[in-house]
Amino acid sequence: MTITIDLNCDLGESFGHYNIGHDEQILDYISSANIACGFHAGDPHTMRKTVQLAIEKGVAIGAHPGLPDLNGFGRRKMEISEEEAYELILYQVGALQAFVQAQGGKMQHVKPHGALYNMAAVDQIISSAIVKAIYDLNKNLIIYGLHGSQLVKEGNRIGLKTASEGFIDRVYQNDGTLTPRKMEHSLIQSDEVAIRQAIQMVKEHSVDTYSQKNIPLKVQTICLHGDHKDSLTFAKKINHYLKIQNISIENFSH
Amino acid sequence: MTITIDLNCDLGESFGHYNIGHDEQILDYISSANIACGFHAGDPHTMRKTVQLAIEKGVAIGAHPGLPDLNGFGRRKMEISEEEAYELILYQVGALQAFVQAQGGKMQHVKPHGALYNMAAVDQIISSAIVKAIYDLNKNLIIYGLHGSQLVKEGNRIGLKTASEGFIDRVYQNDGTLTPRKMEHSLIQSDEVAIRQAIQMVKEHSVDTYSQKNIPLKVQTICLHGDHKDSLTFAKKINHYLKIQNISIENFSH
Amino acid sequence: MTITIDLNCDLGESFGHYNIGHDEQILDYISSANIACGFHAGDPHTMRKTVQLAIEKGVAIGAHPGLPDLNGFGRRKMEISEEEAYELILYQVGALQAFVQAQGGKMQHVKPHGALYNMAAVDQIISSAIVKAIYDLNKNLIIYGLHGSQLVKEGNRIGLKTASEGFIDRVYQNDGTLTPRKMEHSLIQSDEVAIRQAIQMVKEHSVDTYSQKNIPLKVQTICLHGDHKDSLTFAKKINHYLKIQNISIENFSH
Amino acid sequence: MTITIDLNCDLGESFGHYNIGHDEQILDYISSANIACGFHAGDPHTMRKTVQLAIEKGVAIGAHPGLPDLNGFGRRKMEISEEEAYELILYQVGALQAFVQAQGGKMQHVKPHGALYNMAAVDQIISSAIVKAIYDLNKNLIIYGLHGSQLVKEGNRIGLKTASEGFIDRVYQNDGTLTPRKMEHSLIQSDEVAIRQAIQMVKEHSVDTYSQKNIPLKVQTICLHGDHKDSLTFAKKINHYLKIQNISIENFSH
Repeated sequence: MTITIDLNCDLGESFGHYNIGHDEQILDYISSANIACGFHAGDPHTMRKTVQLAIEKGVAIGAHPGLPDLNGFGRRKMEISEEEAYELILYQVGALQAFVQAQGGKMQHVKPHGALYNMAAVDQIISSAIVKAIYDLNKNLIIYGLHGSQLVKEGNRIGLKTASEGFIDRVYQNDGTLTPRKMEHSLIQSDEVAIRQAIQMVKEHSVDTYSQKNIPLKVQTICLHGDHKDSLTFAKKINHYLKIQNISIENFSH
Repeated sequence: MTITIDLNCDLGESFGHYNIGHDEQILDYISSANIACGFHAGDPHTMRKTVQLAIEKGVAIGAHPGLPDLNGFGRRKMEISEEEAYELILYQVGALQAFVQAQGGKMQHVKPHGALYNMAAVDQIISSAIVKAIYDLNKNLIIYGLHGSQLVKEGNRIGLKTASEGFIDRVYQNDGTLTPRKMEHSLIQSDEVAIRQAIQMVKEHSVDTYSQKNIPLKVQTICLHGDHKDSLTFAKKINHYLKIQNISIENFSH
Repeated sequence: MTITIDLNCDLGESFGHYNIGHDEQILDYISSANIACGFHAGDPHTMRKTVQLAIEKGVAIGAHPGLPDLNGFGRRKMEISEEEAYELILYQVGALQAFVQAQGGKMQHVKPHGALYNMAAVDQIISSAIVKAIYDLNKNLIIYGLHGSQLVKEGNRIGLKTASEGFIDRVYQNDGTLTPRKMEHSLIQSDEVAIRQAIQMVKEHSVDTYSQKNIPLKVQTICLHGDHKDSLTFAKKINHYLKIQNISIENFSH
Repeated sequence: MTITIDLNCDLGESFGHYNIGHDEQILDYISSANIACGFHAGDPHTMRKTVQLAIEKGVAIGAHPGLPDLNGFGRRKMEISEEEAYELILYQVGALQAFVQAQGGKMQHVKPHGALYNMAAVDQIISSAIVKAIYDLNKNLIIYGLHGSQLVKEGNRIGLKTASEGFIDRVYQNDGTLTPRKMEHSLIQSDEVAIRQAIQMVKEHSVDTYSQKNIPLKVQTICLHGDHKDSLTFAKKINHYLKIQNISIENFSH
């Protein structure tokens, strides 16, 4: 029997003269792309081009809305109201939707970016505003959120499909949350260990924590980081090793 | 027999802490609203609120995309490429579309703002990029453009519905173009003269130029300026006098 | 004997097409102006014009730097690093300084705006970064900060002159802090009560709290809000009643 | 006898998460750095860091102000008024000046960026506004402008020092202007030819045009492009070959 998993990556993060990522090549190894919408990264040109590439390569498209903080790449927490969360989601998802629609594609999902993703993981008010915006816009969109997050709970509660997300290169804690980035050991440095963690998540629905406890963790999508200089090499590797394990990399539009 | 005309006005131009216009009240006197999309004015909150008001008051909604120049209110010409014109239209119209869609409404039209409107009036490349973006997004959208403009021509050429626009308070030249704003006599100062010009446009399909020549000018929509301090008073007046003349103020969704 | 107090007001908050405040007239009633620097409000044109007016009217000029959040008017807390706080202060104060220098004036003080002001009141790291930036730039600049704040403490510690600020129209709590804005009774609604509070602060160095306790509060500057529609009327009133009490409204450049 | 020439390069063009250029290394090979000021590129953090590196390496610092168009990297012409030109120069130069001042350095020059540089080359009104802003701020600043440009003329007229700039890798026309970038042969592709052109400019005060005419061209500074992937290699080469020719690379602060 073939096991399937969705492999997603943040793309379309270039801005004007500034090019980052290897979007075109990475699209060959993933099943879903989270495309930046212009608030924390991305711009109309990058959005159009990235949507086009994703469609050409059969990769599912998701909106990747962030906080209005280009200089901070959407990584600085901001105190926004429930109403503001609703509105900035609608604006950004709508903008991306236009590029998808104009090219005859279909949007599959929405995954908040950076600080907004983290806020939505623990804040019930922010996450309920986010899922409400998506629900009001298009009930077929899937919410991507951290495994065990408020965002996934709120998504389910309102009646949207959700995909719990696991991280390949992050160290988990015993309670199932991620070790904060400021901790020294928050990132898995070795590709081999990261790949082993991914396979374990997918095949055994569990993960080994920093203190070597094996805890259950059932995810529907796993996240690949796209903005490192070695991202492309790692994308090839993870794609390769998942397939060797008879794990089929597939999005939710299949 | 009742004659009908569409009366449009630029709305949703507030931004954050900055409130301008009398959107809620002006909506009572017009048939179509051009709503700013965040590049030259407007923001997600203003867009949501303005869309909601327009829907409540039965006013047709149009996107009013502009150049990315908030500090210049989209009034400074910029040298943008064909591709950039296409992309900034798609982005902005998409963003507004999301608010309309989320509230169960329908978008009626697109009218470029300020410098982009003026560029599109005379520049074939820019205007063809604009209409292409709109055509690719939604073939039911109507292009609003200056009477006799490249934008209207390109809209017709690609197969979109168009509405030629006449200005109530601007002085026309013998060739049917507007007297440039830098000329002293470019604006009609008297409300009475402006209203007379509007009625003449609508009923006689002509206008009297600065040099007192009567030239043909057939428009389907007339534009009311919304950001003056006396806009609301004038909106009431023009609405009143059009009705007295048995002119019905109606948008194209009827 | 004449008692003196500095009366300051936030000015220069217009942006492009958006005009707010009654800067020109309010300058007649205050002794120090805090001029926005383009991050949360203000722009190069507004800065130049406001500096010019302040110089003409003999009002001392201060920089009023804020968080990079024009849409939120600098009122949304953001998680910025110590380094970012240092840098955004230097950038903004430098920009304003250029306009002052070009017009032959002198900058008197720096007062952080909105969320940055509130963060600096309680956060030792942010406030030490702010005073360090100002110290590095110009040791003669005076720090304006909330009475009892970290900002004032850090300013004194590094060796800058500081001015503790009292609020005319805010209700104080027993511990000397302001009643949070979300509380219903946080604002003094009556002009008379506000003026009485100002006079009490200046003459008796104390304030009556919400629970009617009289607590000591020694301030060197009091703040007038400039963006309400009745600001100008209130500016006249407070100016008038302070003078009647033989209180001279003077900045620190005298 | 040693001949000297100033070798300048645009630096500090990174923005937030986006890193471009090899600023630290290139500073080893040049005598003057033009540092972006946040409107078309750069941000407070990048400005601070770049100023620090330039001071450490003894490279003269110049402000490199641009049009307010981050997405277009300041390369899209905008219709700005004389007043706006004056104000955007003052704002940006002031912001950079603060970082220089805080680090105990001295600013040497101002060189407009991109479209603003090109506009200032031919537009008398824009260039007079630019030099006026610089003159009002600091009469010791040197204007860097295209050889033969309005900017240099206006700089001289107002009484500022100016440095005429020659381009190492651009093909000249018979009238001394640069071949427009849209022409196929506008760029010198071969490093050797470019270096030869630089040496000819410096030693013989002339340049060979596209049609092989030798025309006089006396420049005080030559410009190295810093944002190509081979910039660093070329910087080393040009530095090396100039020295071999007994040309000393020196800024104007010596």
